Amino acid sequence: MRAARYQGARDFRVEAVEAAEPAAGEVQIKVAYAGICGTDLHIFHGHMDARVSAPQSIGHEMSGTVAAVGEGVTGLAIGQPVTVMPLAPCNDCPACRAGHSHICQNLDFIGIETPGALQELWNVPAHAVVALDAGLSLEHAALIEPLAVACHDVRRARLVAGEFAVVVGGGPIGQLIALVAQATGAQVVLFEPNADRRQVSAELGIEALDPLSLDPVALVEERTGGAGADVVFEVAGVAPTALQSVEFARVRGRIVIVAIHPNPVPMNLHRMFWRELEILGARVYEREDFERAAALLTAGEMPVDTLITEIIPLDRVQQAFERLERADAMKLLVAVAE
Amino acid sequence: MRAARYQGARDFRVEAVEAAEPAAGEVQIKVAYAGICGTDLHIFHGHMDARVSAPQSIGHEMSGTVAAVGEGVTGLAIGQPVTVMPLAPCNDCPACRAGHSHICQNLDFIGIETPGALQELWNVPAHAVVALDAGLSLEHAALIEPLAVACHDVRRARLVAGEFAVVVGGGPIGQLIALVAQATGAQVVLFEPNADRRQVSAELGIEALDPLSLDPVALVEERTGGAGADVVFEVAGVAPTALQSVEFARVRGRIVIVAIHPNPVPMNLHRMFWRELEILGARVYEREDFERAAALLTAGEMPVDTLITEIIPLDRVQQAFERLERADAMKLLVAVAE
Ligand SMILES: [Zn+2]
Ligand SMILES: [Zn+2]
Repeated sequence: MRAARYQGARDFRVEAVEAAEPAAGEVQIKVAYAGICGTDLHIFHGHMDARVSAPQSIGHEMSGTVAAVGEGVTGLAIGQPVTVMPLAPCNDCPACRAGHSHICQNLDFIGIETPGALQELWNVPAHAVVALDAGLSLEHAALIEPLAVACHDVRRARLVAGEFAVVVGGGPIGQLIALVAQATGAQVVLFEPNADRRQVSAELGIEALDPLSLDPVALVEERTGGAGADVVFEVAGVAPTALQSVEFARVRGRIVIVAIHPNPVPMNLHRMFWRELEILGARVYEREDFERAAALLTAGEMPVDTLITEIIPLDRVQQAFERLERADAMKLLVAVAE
Repeated sequence: MRAARYQGARDFRVEAVEAAEPAAGEVQIKVAYAGICGTDLHIFHGHMDARVSAPQSIGHEMSGTVAAVGEGVTGLAIGQPVTVMPLAPCNDCPACRAGHSHICQNLDFIGIETPGALQELWNVPAHAVVALDAGLSLEHAALIEPLAVACHDVRRARLVAGEFAVVVGGGPIGQLIALVAQATGAQVVLFEPNADRRQVSAELGIEALDPLSLDPVALVEERTGGAGADVVFEVAGVAPTALQSVEFARVRGRIVIVAIHPNPVPMNLHRMFWRELEILGARVYEREDFERAAALLTAGEMPVDTLITEIIPLDRVQQAFERLERADAMKLLVAVAE
């Protein structure tokens, strides 16, 4: 079979490799589409070599169909459309024992610590497989994983219909959070300085404003009758937006930290104290987030075609990474198996 | 009557002033004891002159008995022991309308924006008066307000029996939080570098450790089987403890910001994201916190005599502030009326 494999920083190669049979408890998936995300780009840059054993296929946003099942796997017919929730928890640490296995203290991420979806036949543990409705296109199904991130963030925020949400940052996850928040019945304003990204929002039906051409905090105050936002999603990942996130929130408002801030950033704890704010970290997803994401896409209510900038053949993976690096695309899907 | 009045930075004077009759809707309290807290010390230093109209009595931790009631006030007999929940919300802002009047966006704090308890006869709005059980001593009753802060912090943390709590900072509020956490059934470790304060903890039955003579995070890890603390109370109010507070917490742990951090401080948002932590601001109290504080003291379960360093006569208020300034006392009560 063909596999696109990471060789080291900035180097992917498509190679012919022998497909392994699925082991006991594994499912072999014929991969239809794989999306490339910010984490994958981080790997491409060589920043995660401590976690990725090169040469290795990476990729964890995907869709496909069951090609074969290993010993002991039941309930999955050959040809069944599926996606993968790419988490392999230890089931034994304090976090797992407390019911938070999605953020297991020894979590292996399938597609990072173990091989990923940029190969025609991909073996994964059966517990990670999520069966899909036949009515859902495999192109859309490849967006379930990032959409599940957004569903998790919105659920973590305890966002309910009628609330006012601010999304700071209009990359793919910010756009998806805005869509899920709107599907939840919230009013949403997204702040994003990049005009191309604001144009994507407009096509998605999201109100996106340039935070550099107005006073974002004053705007939110005004829109909410002086109260402030019920929920703020910090998806930009830079220090100034983290600091500002707290300013948007109403008394007892919630701020969800979605973006990765590698270094400590200044936060206004006085405002947190004064307004009794709540800052919540949110990472990956749980099974119910995958199920909500699949249900939203199956219902056809998410205008996600707008998010798919292009579908690229497997042998052009290297160019796809280079294009994402230039921030010249929202979401690129790789067509993996013929 | 005699009143100790703030005149300007570092200047309190005891003066004979005429007592006003309680207006309609007011209760006149004969003040028995008034405690001096960190906010009062801040006023003494002249840092809150924008909020305090000198000359003015300040003070909001107190106990006393009803001396008279204004027109329209019912249900309070003369001589009834009382304390005051010193919050005067506007009842009209978004926070009040959302049910969070204790952190009203236009909150007046009785004893700061309006006169306080360091006077023999004190008129306060009837809504602020909390009737007390006759079995509770007025010395202990003067601690209800700071104990209500601790009850609020513990409630905001959603702390339950069997959980592990870390208290960072052993001033009066830190000690009270530790006591309330223990009364809630939690295991508690308090970190405090000052040996005198640790000695107070020991007398209160709280395990207090010197964070400079061991690795606090490693200790908590070990005590919790590698999980981390369920709840962390940041009561120290300095940047390094704020940064460290996040390190103590288990996956999905809660960190309550009790202390005032006037300036933004670096926080580890990556750890918040990675462990899905929750940081909660907590400010003052609600009626149920006052009621729990009064009930805990009435039940005699709080060894609070240890916290009362000394009872000082009204005419020595100036000296009391100077002593607190040297951090040479845990809690000083002023005996106000004869
Ligand atoms: Zn685990
Ligand atoms: Zn109000």
